[in-house]
Amino acid sequence: MAANKRRGERSLVFDHPPRVISASSIVGDIEGAGPLKDAFDLVLDDDLWGQDSWEKAECRMFETVVRMTVEKAGMETGDVHCLLGGDLLNQIITANFAARQLGIPFIGLYGACSTMAESLLLGCMQIDGGYAENTVCTASSHFSTAERQYRAPLEMGNTTPPTAQRTVTGAGAVLLASGPMHNGGEKTYKNVCITGATLGKVIDLGITDSANMGAAMAPAASDTIVGHMRDTGKDITDFDAVITGDLGSFGSDMLKELCGEEGLDLTDRHLDCGNLIYAPSQDVACGGSGCGCSACVLSAHILPLIESGAWKRVLFIATGALMSPASSMQGETIPCIAHAVVLEGGI
Amino acid sequence: MAANKRRGERSLVFDHPPRVISASSIVGDIEGAGPLKDAFDLVLDDDLWGQDSWEKAECRMFETVVRMTVEKAGMETGDVHCLLGGDLLNQIITANFAARQLGIPFIGLYGACSTMAESLLLGCMQIDGGYAENTVCTASSHFSTAERQYRAPLEMGNTTPPTAQRTVTGAGAVLLASGPMHNGGEKTYKNVCITGATLGKVIDLGITDSANMGAAMAPAASDTIVGHMRDTGKDITDFDAVITGDLGSFGSDMLKELCGEEGLDLTDRHLDCGNLIYAPSQDVACGGSGCGCSACVLSAHILPLIESGAWKRVLFIATGALMSPASSMQGETIPCIAHAVVLEGGI
Repeated sequence: MAANKRRGERSLVFDHPPRVISASSIVGDIEGAGPLKDAFDLVLDDDLWGQDSWEKAECRMFETVVRMTVEKAGMETGDVHCLLGGDLLNQIITANFAARQLGIPFIGLYGACSTMAESLLLGCMQIDGGYAENTVCTASSHFSTAERQYRAPLEMGNTTPPTAQRTVTGAGAVLLASGPMHNGGEKTYKNVCITGATLGKVIDLGITDSANMGAAMAPAASDTIVGHMRDTGKDITDFDAVITGDLGSFGSDMLKELCGEEGLDLTDRHLDCGNLIYAPSQDVACGGSGCGCSACVLSAHILPLIESGAWKRVLFIATGALMSPASSMQGETIPCIAHAVVLEGGI
Repeated sequence: MAANKRRGERSLVFDHPPRVISASSIVGDIEGAGPLKDAFDLVLDDDLWGQDSWEKAECRMFETVVRMTVEKAGMETGDVHCLLGGDLLNQIITANFAARQLGIPFIGLYGACSTMAESLLLGCMQIDGGYAENTVCTASSHFSTAERQYRAPLEMGNTTPPTAQRTVTGAGAVLLASGPMHNGGEKTYKNVCITGATLGKVIDLGITDSANMGAAMAPAASDTIVGHMRDTGKDITDFDAVITGDLGSFGSDMLKELCGEEGLDLTDRHLDCGNLIYAPSQDVACGGSGCGCSACVLSAHILPLIESGAWKRVLFIATGALMSPASSMQGETIPCIAHAVVLEGGI
């Protein structure tokens, strides 16, 4: 029998906490005009980025953000033991085609906007369990590829209701390793690791409006946060911040209510990547969404704050809405999931 | 540092080999008329299975095959620590909606027809590493949902070229656990475990014809088989059978040639699930495909032969073609991947 690393119903503890070695982010021009503009590694002028389709541009973003992350650690892609990741497109073509170019052993994931936490959770099992010495966890999304796949061609100029969120054009990657990198470059982290995780369950309270995904996802986020605290015996006050992926402003309010009903007061601790990435003046309704949203904000904003010592322990919960246009057309509601990881500094 | 479980470039060894406790399969009527007809747990008369869409029928198959597998082990779904799985549909709605009904902590995967091996590989890391005591690995596909999503509405009555394969209507599930189940029912396996695995890389030799997926996938299968032998120092003769997922007859011939060029003689050892599931008289061109194909044949045919002692060691390699209709329409070739696990009896 292996040592038991399971806690409670669905949480994990990493005895050999995987270290965050490096991270990178690439975003589109609108994200690059927001409050985190100086934190991203690369801001694109143009969301086609020299390609002949938005899908190929997103693929180039995914591939490039992985290469940037690996280079920051003083490594080459051939040194990377595994690539874990996904995106929002049918058959995760962004991730699959980028993995073809990168040549790294690859595990393809689909967790909608929960992908970044899902990949970190699996990446940590790989590292902590001795199945890899290093692994790259990645997610991306693109406003223009998502709009035409999930909603309507952009050429139609549809307007969005006030509860809608804008799919972030962005890709983020995190390199995990079993210990500090001897060949680590100057841009590496020295102080951040992942000590635990909680697996999500698929939760569906019956929301059918795909322009109100924050409301659909909030119950899944609440379920995972409550599950984490129950499994580990921790409380919200044990964390400097509890950061959800992309509930946006409406979903965030709902999350606070749902957690409040379970006796967890998120008031002073909760942040949401979908709220952090855009300024209220940017006319993006309820904020950002898309799996690139939490991936970029994690890389550009959350990890540096832990590295600097400003935050000591953060619960990062990425939330995904798991419907497809086909399921919605067949009258289905929107099932959602949230996976969580515990980021810690100073260990 | 955790004990190193990595071998060579991309292979894993499981020191605490996860045991196969139970497995189940559900197939459609055409699969149920093939050579393995008596081996499946359930053969459907009708591929709508009482639902109002094929997508909902596939979802019911996925959910039911998991329930059957859990029941065989004398367990309830609430006892299961994790569900790993995926399917071929956009946003893996089959798996996501089934996971909603099952309520088991869930990791969604997209590996096209490589999904069954991908889920077993990750499930083994969970069990061997102590992150779960048991986990269910699942994959499904459905002829009618796949045809209308990937190719054309069935109502058009399109014919297929001789290199095409038929997407299997089928779902398969395998319950892994860290040791024999004390409460195991009569239908459990006592003799089968998974001792190792090899991660796939995305390989693309430039095939563009989605009616010739065997040819597209054969190089990925060959790459993983060669990688496994190189990493572990084993040879084909160390295995009683080397079984690919769904290369079909044309792709199988190509695989033998490609492996032959690397000095590996598959002649007497190779089987393919896509060839095993249909009889030549069934007019299915080059055989079966779809991630349900290898999932069902594994559950219904391969595992019983290991349990009985007929086979002692089997390399199971599920192969996936990772294109989407969008990528094909944008002129892209078909990238493919193959993941492998080592199934052993008598350990």
